[in-house]
Amino acid sequence: MNGTRNVERWGVHEVALEGPSEAPRSGGSRGSNPFTAVRITARYTHGSQAVEVPGFYDGDGVYRVRFMPESTGRWSWAIRSNRPELQGARGAFTCVRPGSKNHGPVRVAGRHHFSYADGTPFFPLGTTAYAWTYRPEAVRRKSLESFSRYGFNKIRMLVFPKHYGDGKNVDISYDPPCFPYEGIPGSWDRTRFVPAYFRNFEERVGDLRDRGIEADVILFHFYDFGKWGLDKGTRRTDDLCYLQYITARLAAYRNVWWSLANEYDLIDNRRLGGGFASSSDRKDWEAIGRYLATHDPAHHLRSVHQWPFGPLFPNRPWLTHVSYQSPGTYSLLMELKGRYRKPVINDEYQYEGNIPMDWGNCSAEEETIRHWAAVMAGGYATHGEAFNTPKNHRDIFWSYGGRLHGGSPPRLRFMKELVTALPFQEMGPDTYKGDGRNLFCLRKDSEVYLYFMTPAWKDHNMLFVGPPEGGTWEYDAVVYDAWACRKVRSASWKCGLVRRPRFPPFAAIVLKRKGGRR
Amino acid sequence: MNGTRNVERWGVHEVALEGPSEAPRSGGSRGSNPFTAVRITARYTHGSQAVEVPGFYDGDGVYRVRFMPESTGRWSWAIRSNRPELQGARGAFTCVRPGSKNHGPVRVAGRHHFSYADGTPFFPLGTTAYAWTYRPEAVRRKSLESFSRYGFNKIRMLVFPKHYGDGKNVDISYDPPCFPYEGIPGSWDRTRFVPAYFRNFEERVGDLRDRGIEADVILFHFYDFGKWGLDKGTRRTDDLCYLQYITARLAAYRNVWWSLANEYDLIDNRRLGGGFASSSDRKDWEAIGRYLATHDPAHHLRSVHQWPFGPLFPNRPWLTHVSYQSPGTYSLLMELKGRYRKPVINDEYQYEGNIPMDWGNCSAEEETIRHWAAVMAGGYATHGEAFNTPKNHRDIFWSYGGRLHGGSPPRLRFMKELVTALPFQEMGPDTYKGDGRNLFCLRKDSEVYLYFMTPAWKDHNMLFVGPPEGGTWEYDAVVYDAWACRKVRSASWKCGLVRRPRFPPFAAIVLKRKGGRR
Repeated sequence: MNGTRNVERWGVHEVALEGPSEAPRSGGSRGSNPFTAVRITARYTHGSQAVEVPGFYDGDGVYRVRFMPESTGRWSWAIRSNRPELQGARGAFTCVRPGSKNHGPVRVAGRHHFSYADGTPFFPLGTTAYAWTYRPEAVRRKSLESFSRYGFNKIRMLVFPKHYGDGKNVDISYDPPCFPYEGIPGSWDRTRFVPAYFRNFEERVGDLRDRGIEADVILFHFYDFGKWGLDKGTRRTDDLCYLQYITARLAAYRNVWWSLANEYDLIDNRRLGGGFASSSDRKDWEAIGRYLATHDPAHHLRSVHQWPFGPLFPNRPWLTHVSYQSPGTYSLLMELKGRYRKPVINDEYQYEGNIPMDWGNCSAEEETIRHWAAVMAGGYATHGEAFNTPKNHRDIFWSYGGRLHGGSPPRLRFMKELVTALPFQEMGPDTYKGDGRNLFCLRKDSEVYLYFMTPAWKDHNMLFVGPPEGGTWEYDAVVYDAWACRKVRSASWKCGLVRRPRFPPFAAIVLKRKGGRR
Repeated sequence: MNGTRNVERWGVHEVALEGPSEAPRSGGSRGSNPFTAVRITARYTHGSQAVEVPGFYDGDGVYRVRFMPESTGRWSWAIRSNRPELQGARGAFTCVRPGSKNHGPVRVAGRHHFSYADGTPFFPLGTTAYAWTYRPEAVRRKSLESFSRYGFNKIRMLVFPKHYGDGKNVDISYDPPCFPYEGIPGSWDRTRFVPAYFRNFEERVGDLRDRGIEADVILFHFYDFGKWGLDKGTRRTDDLCYLQYITARLAAYRNVWWSLANEYDLIDNRRLGGGFASSSDRKDWEAIGRYLATHDPAHHLRSVHQWPFGPLFPNRPWLTHVSYQSPGTYSLLMELKGRYRKPVINDEYQYEGNIPMDWGNCSAEEETIRHWAAVMAGGYATHGEAFNTPKNHRDIFWSYGGRLHGGSPPRLRFMKELVTALPFQEMGPDTYKGDGRNLFCLRKDSEVYLYFMTPAWKDHNMLFVGPPEGGTWEYDAVVYDAWACRKVRSASWKCGLVRRPRFPPFAAIVLKRKGGRR
């Protein structure tokens, strides 16, 4: 890979070097620990620009540095290491224009939205597949097909394996083929990573990237529940070591987002104790956030997933956007937009499914309405699915991916197609035109309107259009059945009361102002 | 009445004087117009305090001045007039402590609430009976019984008569026994009031006052629709003359609120033209608001009822609170609270009823939910009813009062009883604990919680209580069936997830924190 001459902008430049291995010394004892004893960094330079990029040990005596160049042109690199075998290695490559499907990493755009680095707006339509990465290839292929089929372009996924169970009736978990650390459950050596585990994870991130899908990588979580003890009893030095390792491996993937935790505020300190990865103390998450802000050379998006049932996570400079969970996707999302003045994503409004737990038994209708409501608040959301099917009660999509069974995904895809054809980033919620419960309105000035109504809205046979005092504009209107996912008809409406528009139960209505005054 | 020696605080002191009449002059022509030619004012003094109070002509050569004393003790009064018969009349009275049911006029309390002048909190539970005042006594008695039976304590009512009709199929109107002006439809003499019309109106205001009900008096409206032409073609001088007259007659009634207009922003300037009473120009309503702020000696509450579909009415110093109409009672109401930083009342969220018009066919359930949602936003609302019954298709409650037929009034009464037993003025909406659509939470710190859930809320078999990270508090919980209007049971709940509380479809839950930590 060192020989790579051309790397596209926002692609991955990788240096691989042979270095000290952990081969047994004479006498049978292992050599020094390459994960902790060997330091390796590359300095990438481009004109007057220089970027320090940490490297990592990938096992078998191989050390790697990965870098995502953000400017086209000639880049040079030089290795610095405390080991003579690595120190001083150097080279150069040319960063060329990106391919047509590569728009770069996603950044915050304006106050409440996202765009790719090349300026293309990005509308996140999230779904959840926490541990899809370590299922067999056939299942993974189905997962990828499911993501793409329904237009999901941001996947919430965990680095560490996931277990769910109550110790009695429920056991929804698969062991991964290998674990992230050497050792056995209860006795992990947290200074020795298992490169194969991380290699698999980053290949999955690459699978997503190749399909234009963002990987919302959740760095810490507590869904271990005593199964493997991976979340328990770490020391802070271990956690920093892990952060350094995962950043070095993943940061060069342009589609990475850092989600520091899932449900950080639900972590039970007393039960888990130990390092800051098992803490709900905000100071600990602050430390992680700051670490990423200063050590990730690619400056990926950073959030802390929270359940804002209690106090809110403070609005910190390193926090690029707000990630929260709640069935509240409209008024709460708007409140969070106002408070943080950053993009807001409802990253769990409960999952469509049929399991007994409240978080996993939304109807397709309720799932669809909740997601629409988030969008009508000028925000974003993440779907999830928890169907327990007779064939396989464990490959529940929310955890392990596979096939989607629910009714909401095609409706969400339809919503995304509709909304991304509008100037969504320039549109804001108009609370004055709906009831905020079953009728919602989003608009760009008086030029473009989007209405959404649920079957519970009372008046499907009328709509007020435009400013009431105006009356001088006309609109090209298109009425969509947001459940059947099709256009119902178009019309030309004047400002004021539209009579007998005969909206379908789930209706989406797009209005575009005609060129001139009549 | 001049002989009245004792007037209770916030009662009415009235001076009646004989003065020039409009008796025919020799030759049969009428005398000069007492409404415009005679000026009369009283100066009330109390220690160093002095209040100028305008008087009015009440017909038959009688002139009156009415005054609401706000301080106990001895008051003197002296008349000033351009007519020698009136000039210089004087007297005195003693203002004594109010009776037990007299709490004074309602004022704004804190930022978003109301209290009587004596400090007693006032929770407005409004209803609408625009033109109940001029129906026969038997109907009026039914109206008053209806108001009291369901605890409605603020009635939205018009000074001018009301017609509703489309000129074809719909004709919902009664002529009043007499009209406010001399003349005939199409040819009103707007400089000559008919005292009997106003006397009847103020007697109705008195009926309400005696039952502890506030009269939300709507000064201007356009529900004439060509029937009598009362809203059309006035001059500004006429309108000022009317404002002076109505203020002089009514301001001494402690239960008066001034609602400058109903739906000021829906007035069609082009159709109505003329004086500012028939204008949607904000400058005109500004002029009226300023007039009242400076000329009403009792400083009653002032609002302009608007449909905030288009631009909002500006936040003016003379505006004491926000009055608006919309099906949006939760997110919109909260937004208006934030924008105006004043109390907000949704003064029409549509009426329970069975008429074809969208504004008059809410189900009892929807009516109840909309009103509850306003209260759960820390605001207030006004009910209305539009049932077309076989017996009488014209005495529709929203217009003419009478009997209530709907299902919402008993539920609203129940809501009011429940909420007023809590420290409502100290409670704020907690958007983090509900979904803002079907589950709502209002709380005072972590001491007192009120939850409300609709039948559409998904999880009636669980509830999260208290802060998630806390877990050290316990609450005395009472579960109410907000539809059956009864207590279901009490319980003691710890912070965290409450399992299987078996909430009724319409549930209201009150939590009060127990004294100490466990």
